[in-house]
Amino acid sequence: MPRPAKKSVDPLELFGQRLIQLRKAKAWSQERLALESGLARSYVGGIERGQRNIALLNIYRLAEALRVPPSALLEAPH
Amino acid sequence: MPRPAKKSVDPLELFGQRLIQLRKAKAWSQERLALESGLARSYVGGIERGQRNIALLNIYRLAEALRVPPSALLEAPH
Repeated sequence: MPRPAKKSVDPLELFGQRLIQLRKAKAWSQERLALESGLARSYVGGIERGQRNIALLNIYRLAEALRVPPSALLEAPH
Repeated sequence: MPRPAKKSVDPLELFGQRLIQLRKAKAWSQERLALESGLARSYVGGIERGQRNIALLNIYRLAEALRVPPSALLEAPH
């Protein structure tokens, strides 16, 4: 049976999954993360669904709110 | 003597310095990095000067071109 074509990685989806992982590790709701980061709750929701091409300054705001280094947000969810 | 006020970190500048570091580690010019990543040379120059709030998809393009994990681009230059 041929190997399924390697599904190319969607960076936005990966980032969204990683963000959910880090948020849930703190038992935070999306509302709490929005409050802590100063981002709109709807924007946080869009990021987590992999629908936002988030820029660097907002990556830093999320990292600061979650108290993780910014690079941690770009690691693959594990 | 009072400690100088801790200069708040500018994420765009930090990213630019880190990008220069990773590019020079490969002895690449900005032109070569632009070619390898598919980004405009002028845009690469602006990123390196800390003038661009680069978004996630372009961070991935640079990481792929430099053959480093995306998270490496968000580590502090060392």
